[in-house]
Amino acid sequence: MKKKPLILVTNDDGITAPGLRTLIRIMKKIGEVVVVAPDKPQSAMGHAITVNSTLYCTPYNTGETHKEFSCSGTPADCVKLAVREILPRTPDICVSGINHGSNSSINVIYSGTMSAAVEAGIEGIPAIGFSLCDYSWDANFEPVESLVETITREALANGIPKGVVLNVNFPDLPDSGIKGIKVCRQAKANWVEEFDKRTNPMGKDYYWLTGKFVNLDKGEDTDEWALEHGYASVVPVQFDLTAHHSIQDLNTWNLND
Amino acid sequence: MKKKPLILVTNDDGITAPGLRTLIRIMKKIGEVVVVAPDKPQSAMGHAITVNSTLYCTPYNTGETHKEFSCSGTPADCVKLAVREILPRTPDICVSGINHGSNSSINVIYSGTMSAAVEAGIEGIPAIGFSLCDYSWDANFEPVESLVETITREALANGIPKGVVLNVNFPDLPDSGIKGIKVCRQAKANWVEEFDKRTNPMGKDYYWLTGKFVNLDKGEDTDEWALEHGYASVVPVQFDLTAHHSIQDLNTWNLND
Repeated sequence: MKKKPLILVTNDDGITAPGLRTLIRIMKKIGEVVVVAPDKPQSAMGHAITVNSTLYCTPYNTGETHKEFSCSGTPADCVKLAVREILPRTPDICVSGINHGSNSSINVIYSGTMSAAVEAGIEGIPAIGFSLCDYSWDANFEPVESLVETITREALANGIPKGVVLNVNFPDLPDSGIKGIKVCRQAKANWVEEFDKRTNPMGKDYYWLTGKFVNLDKGEDTDEWALEHGYASVVPVQFDLTAHHSIQDLNTWNLND
Repeated sequence: MKKKPLILVTNDDGITAPGLRTLIRIMKKIGEVVVVAPDKPQSAMGHAITVNSTLYCTPYNTGETHKEFSCSGTPADCVKLAVREILPRTPDICVSGINHGSNSSINVIYSGTMSAAVEAGIEGIPAIGFSLCDYSWDANFEPVESLVETITREALANGIPKGVVLNVNFPDLPDSGIKGIKVCRQAKANWVEEFDKRTNPMGKDYYWLTGKFVNLDKGEDTDEWALEHGYASVVPVQFDLTAHHSIQDLNTWNLND
């Protein structure tokens, strides 16, 4: 019999998040699970890492057979610590999530969930970030469980292309409401921020960041289109950020006169 | 006479950093400058934004004619606040830096300096991040001043392609040591972490993240090659992270059986 795959599970909502608990349960059907997750919510942390302060990493006892560790750092820190200090060998796959809230389109760049997956990808480990388009703590993950399992098993069977990690988002739909899975490109959509300016009890102004998501990209090959039309979206994400198509253009500039 | 360009200046080392002071001085030769920078160092913050706490933004008095603001948030927060709350109109360009330390190769993904530039790019504003390969607080920025000016003026004259921001790195060389400016791709290099495990006075283990940078990419078109050979590197960076070349491959998976 083939050896069970070693699966690193992490997230950005913190080790107590129901989305993480769901992901652990699914992954235990597929392989040997080790969890290294932040000890507190780390949403919107982007690809932050901890370089100027210390990191704590403590066993987290759930009474179950698999091992869990709670880490004081960011999602990217969790992956680095797991790979270098905690896991007995390089994991066969790293899964992050299931995030409470969307990481589609431009949100991938702010996402702690995806930063963990990207960090694993940089380390050469196949990686997937999963997100459900429901921000509530008591979101219902049940309708997406079999899809998470299918995508993970396919990734293990086929291998994820080198230099690529998967960004998977699920629409917030009831059982049997999800029509299928679509491979997509990231929609060219973004947030239009509005700052809610207030005055604190000491008379000093402060702001809350708010905003609305605006999608002007009408393409039917985008993650936003898929999600709006009842499909789960799978976007291959790369971490070589070079805009190769612009190099020729920039070489026409007078930079070396 | 043409109106002076409005230039937003920010960084990730904080409003007191000598690299920022140098950048402000250069930009005042080119246009009207407004500074919105973090009130403390925000290195390695990646593309973090502040969604679960409040933001303060306070005028910072330097006695000079241009306006400066000190912000409690991340570099990306600074750009959002500047664009929505502080600037009288959309700036003609956003420059970030000059960072104390390299942001070449994979470092772009962890970089607060570049996250500010990328945030501006997402907002449709031409943007450049500048970094000097010297981490020290008293780094000598004088040798790169004219290059920063040249690149900024060329960006204003030619326009930066839509969806692209520039990641500029300078080698740490004395006057006249820099051979020129090269447009490059991001080298496929990465950090190999080592955690320095210690025990605190209360007997609890903790870690410091350390590591060494490993570049196995021998291409002569990379930013690492340019910097090692005495050139400044300019890498066009994109924030559409879709790995378009992988979509076809993923469409062969059995996702919808």
